[in-house]
Amino acid sequence: MIALVAKCFVLPGKEEEFKALAAPLIEASNLEDGCLSYGLFRAKDGAHLAFVERWRDAAALEAHNNSPHFTSIVPRFAALVSKPGEVEFYEEF
Amino acid sequence: MIALVAKCFVLPGKEEEFKALAAPLIEASNLEDGCLSYGLFRAKDGAHLAFVERWRDAAALEAHNNSPHFTSIVPRFAALVSKPGEVEFYEEF
Repeated sequence: MIALVAKCFVLPGKEEEFKALAAPLIEASNLEDGCLSYGLFRAKDGAHLAFVERWRDAAALEAHNNSPHFTSIVPRFAALVSKPGEVEFYEEF
Repeated sequence: MIALVAKCFVLPGKEEEFKALAAPLIEASNLEDGCLSYGLFRAKDGAHLAFVERWRDAAALEAHNNSPHFTSIVPRFAALVSKPGEVEFYEEF
C-alpha cells in the first residue's frame, strides 16, 4: 500500500476556488481501481491544504497520474498557489 | 473526517524493533470505533516512518489517544527515535 500527502500552499482567498476545482478530481480518483482513499484536507493550523491519498500499489498510483482527470485538473492548481506543492510518498512498512 | 500524519524519526537500526512494537497498536487501532484507516509507512526517501491515520471525527481520535493500547505503547517509542515526532492534523475540507 502507498500513502501520499500532497501539500498545496493555496493563496489567501483562493481556498474555495481550489476546492471547487478539486471536487471532480476527488470524485473521479475515488472511483479508480486501486484507490483506497483520496480526500482534500486543511491543516489544523490553516497553513495549507493537502490531498491525503492511499493507493493499493505503485501501478494504481501511476495510472492515476496519467488519468484524464489528473492531467486536466492538476495543472490548473498552479494559478491558485503561492509556491509548488510538497509531496511525501510513503510505502506501508 | 480527520487525517493525521505522525512522523517518527526512528534511530538507524531500530526500524524493525519499532515496527514490532507498533504492530499491536496498529491492530487495536484499526478495530476502534471511528477509525477509518491506520497504518505504519516508510517515507520513500527512507528518512522517517509515519503513522498515516484517518478518523471519523475528533471524538474518535480523542478516544484513541486515551485508549490502553495508545497510552501503553506510544511512550515506548521514545527509546527508539532520535527526536520527538512531528504530527500534522488535517480536517476534511
